[in-house]
Amino acid sequence: MISTQRLIDLMRAVREKKPLLHVITNRVAINDSANGALAVGASPIMAEAHEEVETIAAISGALELNIGNLTPYSIQSMLLSGHAANQAGVPVVLDPVGAGATEFRLQTVQKLLDELDIAIIRGNAGEIAALAGEDWGAKGVDAGEGDGDIVAIAERVARKWHTVTAVSGAADTITDGQQTYCIKNGHPLFPYMTGSGCLNGVIQAAYAAVSPNYLEASVAASVNYAIAGQLAGEKCAGPGSFRQQLMDELYLLTEEKIRRYAAFEEVARS
Amino acid sequence: MISTQRLIDLMRAVREKKPLLHVITNRVAINDSANGALAVGASPIMAEAHEEVETIAAISGALELNIGNLTPYSIQSMLLSGHAANQAGVPVVLDPVGAGATEFRLQTVQKLLDELDIAIIRGNAGEIAALAGEDWGAKGVDAGEGDGDIVAIAERVARKWHTVTAVSGAADTITDGQQTYCIKNGHPLFPYMTGSGCLNGVIQAAYAAVSPNYLEASVAASVNYAIAGQLAGEKCAGPGSFRQQLMDELYLLTEEKIRRYAAFEEVARS
Amino acid sequence: MISTQRLIDLMRAVREKKPLLHVITNRVAINDSANGALAVGASPIMAEAHEEVETIAAISGALELNIGNLTPYSIQSMLLSGHAANQAGVPVVLDPVGAGATEFRLQTVQKLLDELDIAIIRGNAGEIAALAGEDWGAKGVDAGEGDGDIVAIAERVARKWHTVTAVSGAADTITDGQQTYCIKNGHPLFPYMTGSGCLNGVIQAAYAAVSPNYLEASVAASVNYAIAGQLAGEKCAGPGSFRQQLMDELYLLTEEKIRRYAAFEEVARS
Repeated sequence: MISTQRLIDLMRAVREKKPLLHVITNRVAINDSANGALAVGASPIMAEAHEEVETIAAISGALELNIGNLTPYSIQSMLLSGHAANQAGVPVVLDPVGAGATEFRLQTVQKLLDELDIAIIRGNAGEIAALAGEDWGAKGVDAGEGDGDIVAIAERVARKWHTVTAVSGAADTITDGQQTYCIKNGHPLFPYMTGSGCLNGVIQAAYAAVSPNYLEASVAASVNYAIAGQLAGEKCAGPGSFRQQLMDELYLLTEEKIRRYAAFEEVARS
Repeated sequence: MISTQRLIDLMRAVREKKPLLHVITNRVAINDSANGALAVGASPIMAEAHEEVETIAAISGALELNIGNLTPYSIQSMLLSGHAANQAGVPVVLDPVGAGATEFRLQTVQKLLDELDIAIIRGNAGEIAALAGEDWGAKGVDAGEGDGDIVAIAERVARKWHTVTAVSGAADTITDGQQTYCIKNGHPLFPYMTGSGCLNGVIQAAYAAVSPNYLEASVAASVNYAIAGQLAGEKCAGPGSFRQQLMDELYLLTEEKIRRYAAFEEVARS
Repeated sequence: MISTQRLIDLMRAVREKKPLLHVITNRVAINDSANGALAVGASPIMAEAHEEVETIAAISGALELNIGNLTPYSIQSMLLSGHAANQAGVPVVLDPVGAGATEFRLQTVQKLLDELDIAIIRGNAGEIAALAGEDWGAKGVDAGEGDGDIVAIAERVARKWHTVTAVSGAADTITDGQQTYCIKNGHPLFPYMTGSGCLNGVIQAAYAAVSPNYLEASVAASVNYAIAGQLAGEKCAGPGSFRQQLMDELYLLTEEKIRRYAAFEEVARS
């Protein structure tokens, strides 16, 4: 069982080590992803040029790959940086945005999973279900409302690709295929902030950069991000103020807030 | 004459149907466009890859094409998705950003108008005047200050391309070439928010997705967006807070607010 | 010695002339850069298409080139627009984002500096040090913490490329290689806002568009931007609210605020 103290230690480790994060992401989420990374204490660099992605990935604390706006050029950027990261022992986080929306996205994600060693996959239920070959009624890049057992699906994905799988939603599910955690922090305004899932993926990368135990890293990142959202949501009237307040709360997160609000537990394997 | 009740019904229809919106837009406005779409209740997907744009356009409630950052690749994305949308009966909204700024933009817009069946064209006065071959003194992507009869110009554009034309400005003009509406809601801070016109175009698409009467859809989208801006502006000191508050007000729009604030009227044909 | 009155005159000149700014920048900063340009009174256009960049650069008040997200296509856009601007006497501002991070960025910046006549180079200490061939311990796109004499380095860069060099940091250093100014306004939240340096570069361009004395333009832009940040910071709890408030303060800047807060001085040449 991961302790609340561990979530606090990892939050501090990100702030102290200020890991360089190499992020290749979509144009919608790129600004919030950079601001959120800065807010938790990391140092993001959003580089896609083939001439430099290998160099940057190899010296980074973590690499985050997000398929929200694929082009032939960016797919190649992801493969080049991913191989360089794997070679250098730099953890790679994958965000399979809209994997259930088109065959093209699903095939690209599968290619990335087949070629690269992925530390953490973070997606919504529709995306993770797509990786498992399950129908989830996803609509575009939004989660959809499937009725399968998302815990079982997440564990299957984790075991198949030897990775930690983090499923974001009203409650988050984090699993390495052996141990599984459920996180109950969060706020209903999250889905109204475009790229809030993408930013979650970047924060997973920030925590993976400071902990070789990726299950712990993912649980800590998820709880801390969800607490910031919960506190932001309590101060907001709508999605515009939520987005701004979320950035403040990520920056203002403290040991005391984590102790007071963290709501997570280990769940029995499905 | 369109009734205020109709504006309310369409606002509700967007929230209930949560239409998938396929948006191909510029890098400046892309984040606000996605957040604004979510705030009104739609589900945006910003896809440009040639491998998937046809699939996504065909299953969407509407397609929105914005030429703010053209590349050879994105022009092809627009044509592929536009033809797929036309084929599937999905309405297409076109935003001719900066059409008066360069010959290249004007030619691209004309190509899109010639090849595709466009439900609604939304632009500022300078852009719509450029489509009509009128000089409007536009500067870059800003409207400029022409002294022509914008109602007559808008009606000409609408009739030429068999489309609804929505001209945004201090007052908005919406016409299908037969019936013309003038909308007086809005706020002087709108032009200080980059991409506020682009977001207007996306909201036009959200409403077109729920109403086959595109004149009604465009008037409803325009009035409701302008009311949200008016309410946001009253609470703000400058453009930074306006932008945030606008997103909140789009989300918080109610039947009561529409009844209280809607200021639109049919105008005689020029 | 530049007077405070001159800072005020240039702020007003930007608002009165509303210069068209042609900006080629990275995807992270592009939205804030456009909003910030609007907030100070300029009219930004973010055009990259090869078919139109020369036309737009030639009619603009200034051109700003930012290398934050290089692609082969955007490098060519920068060269085409840069040559057109030089030909037309339009000042060009260069922002060498992450020049110290990879050999690829450094070579690209040097190519731009060799081929184009640059009015102002704006970067953080790590970036300017990289141009001077100094090691500064830069990490990615963040400044790093070198211990060289940044004034001497900035003067060297200014003299080598016959340009004004503006180094942003806790204090800013602005020099044309002969006269050097130090600016002490600012706020510790600036580095937590991604693209805050990029926006600084755009504001340098807005001021260069209204003053052929680029040293004055750069000092005025830097002081006014730093005052806006200082006032924003005093009202904020974290980086999310800082970003919003900064846009408001740029828009709300007055003669009185500049007189009250401007903190800059000429320093002896190193």
